Amino acid sequence: MISKNQLKLLRALGQKKQRKAHGLFLVQGEKNVLELAESNLTVQHIFATADFIAHNHNTLSRFECIEASLDDLTKASTLVSNNAAIAVVEIPTLTAPTAQGLMIALDGVQDPGNLGTIIRVADWYGIQHIVASTDCADPYNPKTISATMGSFGRVQVHQLDLPNYLEQSNLPVYGAFLEGVSVHKTEFAAEGILLMGSESHGVRAEAAKYVTDKITIPAFGGAESLNVAMATGIILDNIRRQNS
Amino acid sequence: MISKNQLKLLRALGQKKQRKAHGLFLVQGEKNVLELAESNLTVQHIFATADFIAHNHNTLSRFECIEASLDDLTKASTLVSNNAAIAVVEIPTLTAPTAQGLMIALDGVQDPGNLGTIIRVADWYGIQHIVASTDCADPYNPKTISATMGSFGRVQVHQLDLPNYLEQSNLPVYGAFLEGVSVHKTEFAAEGILLMGSESHGVRAEAAKYVTDKITIPAFGGAESLNVAMATGIILDNIRRQNS
Repeated sequence: MISKNQLKLLRALGQKKQRKAHGLFLVQGEKNVLELAESNLTVQHIFATADFIAHNHNTLSRFECIEASLDDLTKASTLVSNNAAIAVVEIPTLTAPTAQGLMIALDGVQDPGNLGTIIRVADWYGIQHIVASTDCADPYNPKTISATMGSFGRVQVHQLDLPNYLEQSNLPVYGAFLEGVSVHKTEFAAEGILLMGSESHGVRAEAAKYVTDKITIPAFGGAESLNVAMATGIILDNIRRQNS
Repeated sequence: MISKNQLKLLRALGQKKQRKAHGLFLVQGEKNVLELAESNLTVQHIFATADFIAHNHNTLSRFECIEASLDDLTKASTLVSNNAAIAVVEIPTLTAPTAQGLMIALDGVQDPGNLGTIIRVADWYGIQHIVASTDCADPYNPKTISATMGSFGRVQVHQLDLPNYLEQSNLPVYGAFLEGVSVHKTEFAAEGILLMGSESHGVRAEAAKYVTDKITIPAFGGAESLNVAMATGIILDNIRRQNS
């Protein structure tokens, strides 16, 4: 059963301020909760249906599981869809990664769904670190976590002073612009930072000045732009096809 | 002003059954309404703020515009965000396209947002025709239209008997599967049909039997799958880089 106080906490963790104050975030839904077991994240406890706990006994054995009805879980969830499981997880303390390998940098990407989709496609292409400007969406927003489809456990998102980070890195910085060189014609280094701006403002001047290569996805039709997550995926594919 | 009857119609057009009965659909939001003016679609009338009408006088001159307050438009809208304009548009009568050029076929893609994103990326890559199984999301669902970011005016979506269509086509059918040949190593013909299944079920057997080439996006990390719209975009990029 979910106690009154527990329910209060679950509700609170829908808000960024409360997540920060408690140092906790929510992982909701069957797939995402099962992915938790494979991650290095520290789980406080998991609320789940008796069915879900029974079916995943081995995977969940090292966690404190609290049985709850699907009704109560749905009421407690910050997401619309039904939830067989909700986990309360500690926000990890991350140190900014050394710039190496292939990385993604995000400048002002404010939609949590887009951030989650970028985490998922980053994971597909084997990228472990995303550096994000402090005004990007919160990586621990329930909508972000949900959109990652479990990839939140394998990709670390570091919110930091982005221009400062780019300045100190020695890697090439591939910045996505509408007027860059076609990614079909760019020679990508094996190590580098792919810098993506927001859909509305693009890469801002403070970050743009560290770009070593302006790149673009060639257009063949009438659409004016692509969604930032879509563009990230397409460019990553172009980089990995050269360096795999 | 939006009359009571007009408001009733706008609300009704949020539902598929009512769209079908009236032969009408909604185009909402500034960008999408302005894209209408460039399309061949037949517009019944446009509800818009005085500001929006004044600013876009030339573009909108051939349409019947009805002035309304932002408040009334927001109340009338089926979308959450504010709306400076809502257009009532006739659903066009389409004839199934001859299989030629590069096309997309969708098998059971049921999320309207995904369908809209696929329409947008199809437009980016210069594709004019999408054929979709009858159980795909409605191309005239307000969420679909909104996600196309204006591309609904340049890409036609034909709902039809998909296996039957694929059977009669003489083009290669590139089917996306988790266990196909890497798109980085596939030689694509200039003309062909890219067949995408739903995220949950993939391409179903009835359509799969017409696939001439099973293809896949190579994975480099831990994610198990990609969103269907993302996968469509990445594969289209791989096809167009060979045939541009």
